[in-house]
Amino acid sequence: MPEVPLPSWNDGPARSAIVDLVARVAKEGGKDYVPPAERIATFDNDGTLWNEHPMLVQGFFLADRIKQLAAKDPSIKQRQPFKAFVEHDFKTLQSLGKQGLAELVFATHAGMSDEEFADIGRAWFASAKHPKYGCPFTQVAFRPQLELLGYLRENGFKTYIVTGGGVDFVRLISEPVYGIPREQVIGSSVKLRVEMKDGRPVLIKTPELGSFDDREAKVQNIGLHIGRRPVLAFGNSDGDLAMLRYVKSGPGARLALLLHHDDAEREAAYDREFMLSPLAEALDKADEYGITVVSVKRDWKVVFR
Amino acid sequence: MPEVPLPSWNDGPARSAIVDLVARVAKEGGKDYVPPAERIATFDNDGTLWNEHPMLVQGFFLADRIKQLAAKDPSIKQRQPFKAFVEHDFKTLQSLGKQGLAELVFATHAGMSDEEFADIGRAWFASAKHPKYGCPFTQVAFRPQLELLGYLRENGFKTYIVTGGGVDFVRLISEPVYGIPREQVIGSSVKLRVEMKDGRPVLIKTPELGSFDDREAKVQNIGLHIGRRPVLAFGNSDGDLAMLRYVKSGPGARLALLLHHDDAEREAAYDREFMLSPLAEALDKADEYGITVVSVKRDWKVVFR
Repeated sequence: MPEVPLPSWNDGPARSAIVDLVARVAKEGGKDYVPPAERIATFDNDGTLWNEHPMLVQGFFLADRIKQLAAKDPSIKQRQPFKAFVEHDFKTLQSLGKQGLAELVFATHAGMSDEEFADIGRAWFASAKHPKYGCPFTQVAFRPQLELLGYLRENGFKTYIVTGGGVDFVRLISEPVYGIPREQVIGSSVKLRVEMKDGRPVLIKTPELGSFDDREAKVQNIGLHIGRRPVLAFGNSDGDLAMLRYVKSGPGARLALLLHHDDAEREAAYDREFMLSPLAEALDKADEYGITVVSVKRDWKVVFR
Repeated sequence: MPEVPLPSWNDGPARSAIVDLVARVAKEGGKDYVPPAERIATFDNDGTLWNEHPMLVQGFFLADRIKQLAAKDPSIKQRQPFKAFVEHDFKTLQSLGKQGLAELVFATHAGMSDEEFADIGRAWFASAKHPKYGCPFTQVAFRPQLELLGYLRENGFKTYIVTGGGVDFVRLISEPVYGIPREQVIGSSVKLRVEMKDGRPVLIKTPELGSFDDREAKVQNIGLHIGRRPVLAFGNSDGDLAMLRYVKSGPGARLALLLHHDDAEREAAYDREFMLSPLAEALDKADEYGITVVSVKRDWKVVFR
């Protein structure tokens, strides 16, 4: 454990709120003590734990997949919305919305087993580079958040990802990047079908949406998968507002954090106009709902690893 | 760790298969070594971890709930299938099947928040007694299985329950009885709805079935919730067969165990004729699928705590 917790965070109300919450729930005999088994922290992923601007990491993955698929069927690159992916035409892609994007990703992988998908995804993460940052996509995670995840775990918290992204995709990197085991990732998903392949049962991804894990669905999925109201939640968009309110309104000490991307120089500045995952209502109502706003510019000493 | 693992298990092929599997996956550098993060074990609950004969624990709970509800509306006790519950009329109840029973339980609690349901369930477990065994229902768990859960965890396994029973119900006792945290229970569930109650968001149980966690659904839910093929699975009925085959057919060392209730003297003897959760195909095909049959009579020194 570092002498000063969260060294990449500047002194200020956000850092203080985190350190204070942890001290209160961990203090045995204190009025806000929470047994370790109940110390659950849930994090959104895109834009909260790693970069999502100008495009979701999973969007870049899909663009490369479409190029691979076009090797067999070149016409795919001429059809929308695939054309927009290949050309990194963010405006057209944003107009699809987050759910439209998720469904597209899912359609591209229907009929494949979860194990086959994992092989393709791992190969992509091992070779692809982020066009803006020039590094592997596993390195666009935010360093202050990696510290926060570690700090919470050192203090007995179990850390979860609750993402609108595809659960199979995020599980590929949750352990190596965030130290979060696959089973602690909740995300958007398709229904799975059990099928016999070479005499053994495998799980096949169907095209049918199981859950689009955004807004109220994040709360419903926390109930289904975890069955406890978390003590801390962290998000960055209106898609996280339901989860932040659910967590903050539990009894005892709770902390809801909202990341505001306001640092064009070091990363990106966006909120209301980011169509993929806008931040408007959550920002306007943060005070009213007791949500702590974290400013990239003010609260983070560094942004990336 | 006890000097001899699994003291309530008799020497024999079942105990040897377990000890051998654990030794192989834990041996660093060995060809069957499995890193701790991937050591997942999934257990059915009713009839595998605790008694289900002559009636499911959740059936007794429902019977008592119906009596409570009848205080407000006495006609409920005269209507089937509620009448059968109150009268512990197992024959009529068995004819409903396991899914019918699950749906009934869910209907009885629709409109309630998950937190309200938990209060009712906890109060019941604290006071109700099993009519056959005369002990609290938390004491009808099988001692050899409690030892097995502990033994697996001592060897780096993460233990899960994958049950056809209601997930909210089983989560009430998973930690105190089995040492399994709530979030490691996968079960049958209704869809949840987020609702504002006294100004704060709560999760409300709807009457709509989300998942009936039996047969292939157990495998699908393992994919959704855990995202890894377990190394060991334990069941006791045809409802567990898909899970046992899924686990056993993974690469490397795997173990699928099937409990056969063949001890009328110490517990109960039933298989093909137990309509609620029959054991027929799994027993007939155990050899072919490489499933290890565990006999209560032969393999267990004691049955209960």
